[in-house]
Amino acid sequence: MTEDATTEQPTGGTTGPRLVAEPRQDGVDAAVRAARRLVTALLRSGDGTGADMAAVAKEIDAVTDRLTENAPAVPERLADMWRGEGVTRHDPVTGPENAVAPPLTLRGRDDGSVAGVVTLDLPYQGPPGHVHGGISALLLDHTLGVANHWAGSAGMTAELTLRYLRPTPLFEPLTVTGRQVSVEGPRIRAVGEISAGGRPVVTAEGLFIHKQLPRPS
Amino acid sequence: MTEDATTEQPTGGTTGPRLVAEPRQDGVDAAVRAARRLVTALLRSGDGTGADMAAVAKEIDAVTDRLTENAPAVPERLADMWRGEGVTRHDPVTGPENAVAPPLTLRGRDDGSVAGVVTLDLPYQGPPGHVHGGISALLLDHTLGVANHWAGSAGMTAELTLRYLRPTPLFEPLTVTGRQVSVEGPRIRAVGEISAGGRPVVTAEGLFIHKQLPRPS
Repeated sequence: MTEDATTEQPTGGTTGPRLVAEPRQDGVDAAVRAARRLVTALLRSGDGTGADMAAVAKEIDAVTDRLTENAPAVPERLADMWRGEGVTRHDPVTGPENAVAPPLTLRGRDDGSVAGVVTLDLPYQGPPGHVHGGISALLLDHTLGVANHWAGSAGMTAELTLRYLRPTPLFEPLTVTGRQVSVEGPRIRAVGEISAGGRPVVTAEGLFIHKQLPRPS
Repeated sequence: MTEDATTEQPTGGTTGPRLVAEPRQDGVDAAVRAARRLVTALLRSGDGTGADMAAVAKEIDAVTDRLTENAPAVPERLADMWRGEGVTRHDPVTGPENAVAPPLTLRGRDDGSVAGVVTLDLPYQGPPGHVHGGISALLLDHTLGVANHWAGSAGMTAELTLRYLRPTPLFEPLTVTGRQVSVEGPRIRAVGEISAGGRPVVTAEGLFIHKQLPRPS
């Protein structure tokens, strides 16, 4: 019933190069992995289990206070987190430093597309037992962006259209794919989809503009 | 620098009835509030602050293990969380039981629209210092759904189009609004936008189909 958070999700046959940050076993990634388990455990508990939630809150707050005491100022942290030209470690989809991220692991495929497999739990619920439509949008927006990087020309989302074909299940492996379809001047187009049990459940079309916000320094 | 997580966000003049679950000061909501602070603190820390992240991971894991031991089985928990006809307490946008949720508080306005104000921190970052496009999609998908409920006829998202007009800043109050524009048979249309500093930054148009998945029992 509890997932083994240290085991990587199955890759669904996507054996190409990893296009997102590799989680480390130690350091902040280990604490984030624990925080992610906590977020899910709180949703699986709810109230009425007899757990002393005031004590839980107090223990977590004590950890947070200790972290906060030693944390750099935000501008300094921003400059640090955007240093280097690698993939981001902190985004809410793939980031090993972000407990909001499921996280989704994306790999490049020989045909130029990208793909990953992820199983979502209660933190991502919309309709009963199913994935929130906005979470599917979040996964697809990010995947289209990574597909653009993999294709060699990326930018910022200008327009994104999602089509929800059928409900997307929680607790089952979802395959998320994306590929770039065209680059015309600064206008980049990419498409993607989420499938469950071999059937598409959500599709996405995105228009991206080839520009980037400056990295803080 | 640390937000006071117990203070409600400003309402941006949206003084109508609250349309989302009210966070409680105690019980699981208090633990979730603490977990939310922890997620942000981990991102604000990163590696290299000298914090003993192995110890942090161990402490959090101990709390999680205790919760997991007493948690109901998932089907039982699902039935429980969907009991009653009120607003959801667990969704990833407004849910006081979900640490993924910022959370966004939405209120109904006299003109039939809904609105809320939220300030987002590092967990929701996409481009440097700015909100991830997929997070804007998540907030808007949910807000359009709540707008449909407020208008009296709601359903599941069938199609959602987002237009990103300019980068959406972190650390500044964002106003999120939505309103239903038409109902034709089962087809419901709603629009919404996110604005920052009085200017729209992202707009959304959604088509919803008037149906609901069965609640688990």
